[in-house]
Amino acid sequence: MRIRGAPLIGVAAAYGLALTAHNAKAKEKKELIQQLSESARNLALTRPTAVNLFWAVERIMKKIEEVKHGSSAKISNAVVEEAKRIADEDFEVNRRIGMHGSPLIKNGDTVLTYCNAGGLATSGYGTALGVLRTAWTEGTKFKVIAAETRPLLQGARLTAYELQQEGIPVTIITDNAAGYIISKGMIDMIIVGADRILKDAVINKIGTYTLALLASTHNTPFYVAAPSSTFDIKRRVNDVEVEERAQTEVLRFQQLQIAPEGVNAYNPAFDITPMQYIKGIIWEKGISSPRDLQKRSDFL
Amino acid sequence: MRIRGAPLIGVAAAYGLALTAHNAKAKEKKELIQQLSESARNLALTRPTAVNLFWAVERIMKKIEEVKHGSSAKISNAVVEEAKRIADEDFEVNRRIGMHGSPLIKNGDTVLTYCNAGGLATSGYGTALGVLRTAWTEGTKFKVIAAETRPLLQGARLTAYELQQEGIPVTIITDNAAGYIISKGMIDMIIVGADRILKDAVINKIGTYTLALLASTHNTPFYVAAPSSTFDIKRRVNDVEVEERAQTEVLRFQQLQIAPEGVNAYNPAFDITPMQYIKGIIWEKGISSPRDLQKRSDFL
Repeated sequence: MRIRGAPLIGVAAAYGLALTAHNAKAKEKKELIQQLSESARNLALTRPTAVNLFWAVERIMKKIEEVKHGSSAKISNAVVEEAKRIADEDFEVNRRIGMHGSPLIKNGDTVLTYCNAGGLATSGYGTALGVLRTAWTEGTKFKVIAAETRPLLQGARLTAYELQQEGIPVTIITDNAAGYIISKGMIDMIIVGADRILKDAVINKIGTYTLALLASTHNTPFYVAAPSSTFDIKRRVNDVEVEERAQTEVLRFQQLQIAPEGVNAYNPAFDITPMQYIKGIIWEKGISSPRDLQKRSDFL
Repeated sequence: MRIRGAPLIGVAAAYGLALTAHNAKAKEKKELIQQLSESARNLALTRPTAVNLFWAVERIMKKIEEVKHGSSAKISNAVVEEAKRIADEDFEVNRRIGMHGSPLIKNGDTVLTYCNAGGLATSGYGTALGVLRTAWTEGTKFKVIAAETRPLLQGARLTAYELQQEGIPVTIITDNAAGYIISKGMIDMIIVGADRILKDAVINKIGTYTLALLASTHNTPFYVAAPSSTFDIKRRVNDVEVEERAQTEVLRFQQLQIAPEGVNAYNPAFDITPMQYIKGIIWEKGISSPRDLQKRSDFL
């Protein structure tokens, strides 16, 4: 969890392989490829849910396959170059997501966002927060409600920080206040990121599904902003593992114990939002309804 | 917030008036009654949402009206006696709530509860936790999931403690994990307390409505356990003020700042659960559907 945010996990995995390539540059070719394959396997084991990790590792491995007849130095350079390209493309893709999504936000809107899908979760611009950033830069005036996002408080710590830096008005709520606020009609739109977009559902930070259900119940549009590196739309919910994380994340607030000694916690890190609750997915090629995206699944 | 839990707030208000009566015992009658009325007004201003406060104060004022032709000492004693009666009755009423509710829990069930509706929120036995306590004492074996209940963590701090003391297996989750857990079919029943039961809705700790909506979506029975001192079924949602509490409750975890300096928080303390989401209200006379309760409103 030193690195978080699906797109950034992908970029970090790519640079992990670039590091392996760089450090093993002088080695014999067979050994180099073996070390890269081993690194790829290890990286793939670090986090099970966000698909960008596997996407980035596969993309680098494909590049290695392409240049495998060249010298060790050529292979190493190709890996490093491909990692840079993944990082640069992520930034560009975020800019395009921002551009497509920003017209959804109107003057005077209050937008709810969740967890952190900002510059701190990507190469530097953000997906959900990229949309907000673009709209703000274009002169749209709106407010943001950031749900704190327990247990690790990415909303309170990271999203609030990014928006504050940008000068966008932001108010923090506890996650459990969203129901009241949405039911009172205080929210015009909800926008979140994604860790994996499947054929039948979106996987994102635990708590996302509840927000989507509330949005659907109270006719509040619910958007997901994510690059196509997050898409895995040939797979379904049942094919995917939802990561469970350490109890201490729930039982402790940094050094502060918040529950009696000896009590257990259950800490699933992600949840599953069925497609029916999602109004649109904002990605680098535009805004697609879940149905449209499913139709495009062949060429993604 | 030194005192919390709707029934306990009522008991504490009654004892507040008993203290006024006790301290002013020797005073002239007119002055005593004036001081009691002033205390009653001040107590009624402390918290706007939980109805038990107003109920207890009104009950004591009615008692004063009954004995107002007696001596100062007689009036004082009557107030102290009535406060004791309110506290004792609350305990008895909780026992009866436990007795009525416990058959709902079956061997092997997993029950979700929220906030703290236990001995620490009442005269000593609990409403929602009273039901669990009774079922456990009767030999039913079940597990409890306690949602932590941000911002003040009554679930993690108080409910987990009470259940642990009782030997009932308890696991803590973050509030935002409820959606995942309920949608996975891991919860057989949800039981919570109430701060005010209106004609058209139940007011309880912020986050309750979201749990009820999730329960309804996934066919999980949702029960409210509360004494009739919580009933205010001639009034509707629009007649009631939802208390907003200090931002610092959200922005700080005890001494620990969890958001960037200068960021604001919005902290409504309660939310509104429409009656349609509630399967039954467990009170001292049995389990009533919301519809039944509305019919009985005349004689409550």
